[in-house]
Amino acid sequence: MTRTDGRSKVAAAAEPPTLETVAAVAGVSRATVSRVINSSPKVSPRVREVVEAAIARTGYVPNRAARTLVTRRTDSVALVVQEPETRLFGDPYLSAIVRSVGAELADTDNQLVLMMVRTAAQQDRLERYLRGGHVDGALLVSLHGDDSLAGRLHDAGMPVVVGGRPLGPGADFVYVDADNVGGARAAVEHLSARGRRRIATIAGPQDMCAGVDRLRGYLDAVPGPALVAHADFGRAGGAAAMRTLLAEAPDLDAVFAASDLMAVGAMAALAAAGRRVPEDVAVVGFDDADVAGWAEPALTTVRQQVAEQGRLMTRLLLERIGGGGLGTSAVLGTTLVERRSS
Amino acid sequence: MTRTDGRSKVAAAAEPPTLETVAAVAGVSRATVSRVINSSPKVSPRVREVVEAAIARTGYVPNRAARTLVTRRTDSVALVVQEPETRLFGDPYLSAIVRSVGAELADTDNQLVLMMVRTAAQQDRLERYLRGGHVDGALLVSLHGDDSLAGRLHDAGMPVVVGGRPLGPGADFVYVDADNVGGARAAVEHLSARGRRRIATIAGPQDMCAGVDRLRGYLDAVPGPALVAHADFGRAGGAAAMRTLLAEAPDLDAVFAASDLMAVGAMAALAAAGRRVPEDVAVVGFDDADVAGWAEPALTTVRQQVAEQGRLMTRLLLERIGGGGLGTSAVLGTTLVERRSS
Repeated sequence: MTRTDGRSKVAAAAEPPTLETVAAVAGVSRATVSRVINSSPKVSPRVREVVEAAIARTGYVPNRAARTLVTRRTDSVALVVQEPETRLFGDPYLSAIVRSVGAELADTDNQLVLMMVRTAAQQDRLERYLRGGHVDGALLVSLHGDDSLAGRLHDAGMPVVVGGRPLGPGADFVYVDADNVGGARAAVEHLSARGRRRIATIAGPQDMCAGVDRLRGYLDAVPGPALVAHADFGRAGGAAAMRTLLAEAPDLDAVFAASDLMAVGAMAALAAAGRRVPEDVAVVGFDDADVAGWAEPALTTVRQQVAEQGRLMTRLLLERIGGGGLGTSAVLGTTLVERRSS
Repeated sequence: MTRTDGRSKVAAAAEPPTLETVAAVAGVSRATVSRVINSSPKVSPRVREVVEAAIARTGYVPNRAARTLVTRRTDSVALVVQEPETRLFGDPYLSAIVRSVGAELADTDNQLVLMMVRTAAQQDRLERYLRGGHVDGALLVSLHGDDSLAGRLHDAGMPVVVGGRPLGPGADFVYVDADNVGGARAAVEHLSARGRRRIATIAGPQDMCAGVDRLRGYLDAVPGPALVAHADFGRAGGAAAMRTLLAEAPDLDAVFAASDLMAVGAMAALAAAGRRVPEDVAVVGFDDADVAGWAEPALTTVRQQVAEQGRLMTRLLLERIGGGGLGTSAVLGTTLVERRSS
């Protein structure tokens, strides 16, 4: 009935094995196989062993969609980057976060699922997907504005951990942030201690917590009147903001840029204007991305613990998914790294 | 019973609406709502309209896991990059593919789900996830070796489109490739036409079709004896391979590198060895990545149509998912872009 019947052998090879195949091979009921797959405590160790051997022999892959209906688990974690694809690859902070989360998940059974989203229509589509039971939880980074996506997922009961302090009112989800205010303050105090008196800043987007908080740190510490230009954390934006600052305040002698990419753009604009770094204008960035070390002159910057941020976010999320309580938000310290540009 | 009962209002706000809520609001049966959600032809346009209005009013989100069991559709597409996270961000070809697929999907209802995978254990985990009904199909790029993951997904009945010609035996899935052989041949013929007589190559990994085919094109066209070093498509590997070539054949007067990053690394090694580009040694790369234009001197290279490759792969996959036949594999042409390095 089995070995001698050539046709059923062919059919078995062409079609994936089912729960029924496993039940037949193990000599147990379909319900028992289902209990083993769903880790029910009602199954004895001996029966579990027999069923697991049958699963291995048949090569059966449980239908995760069916499992999801019962266990609500998919063994996957979403990392949602609220930026378009172009930005993901241009920003050293984002690539470091993805690497860190990937490394932390590598030794677990969880699949990392990376998604980019920017427009409202894309947010709706993403929310439908995430709420559809395809992931067990979500990490969100590079949030803009009122964090409404994170809030909607959180309200729907999905485990969520956010990178950066949420800006929206009443947003009570767990987050891991860098001490952006303290880091910016330290950068400006360093310039001030070096005798700089006309210290400008190139601030980041004011719909993002890193943009808001780094500007706050500058305003806390700047010794004279504030001199502020805004850009988008990118290199070209930093160069344009530097040109604006030079036109408004030709006597400036230092600039704190809220990202390394903006600082590098600012240094290019300073060189084009015939200003020497650090002799005429001292420059400090934020991030300590690779580009800070490569820059000419090498860039003084505020190092944030991006790898640790990604690791901690992942650990907090896995704890929540495992039902281990709410966890506690964390703010990671920053360090000033002095190089030649200041 | 509704407006006057404060408690049930609160309960309705706290818990997401269910199929039953929609049925009650629409005044139809639960089965009718289910038929509308699953696009059954048995529902009249009038009833469909009423149910859809009820879905909109209640804010009901269908449980996609439950839908998957019936319709087998999740409205999502996986892009699987067979490289670790670190590589994804360092390689301009991969970032261009992700951008292109993301742009092509932006106007559709499909969610892009990006996944990186390298080790065998990660491949198994990814295969379980993909076969678990969480995506409708998969694009795979940067394949190494025998393409076994693509083959297993294909054999399991999942729509699959591969970037690059599959190397494995009997692999019959649809792919979109660049004309790597023709492009490499054109690069070597260009160097030969410029009077170069001792033309070396820095070949890519020989477990990848782009590595194999670009070496084949070089071997087809090289005018003298072949002079080959191998690297990993990256910049540091290109520099090391160039040093090896210079030690083995100090009289070489040209090098064709199978990627722009390797070519840029080779130029750095040539400069360190006191060789001028192009006077002493002409250099040609492959890809026409941004770095080719920024290099000093600007790099002659073989342009491949990466954006078109991503677009076409996506379109072929969506056709397959929609049941529109098998589609046809395509090989996209390349163009030699002459700059100062040759």
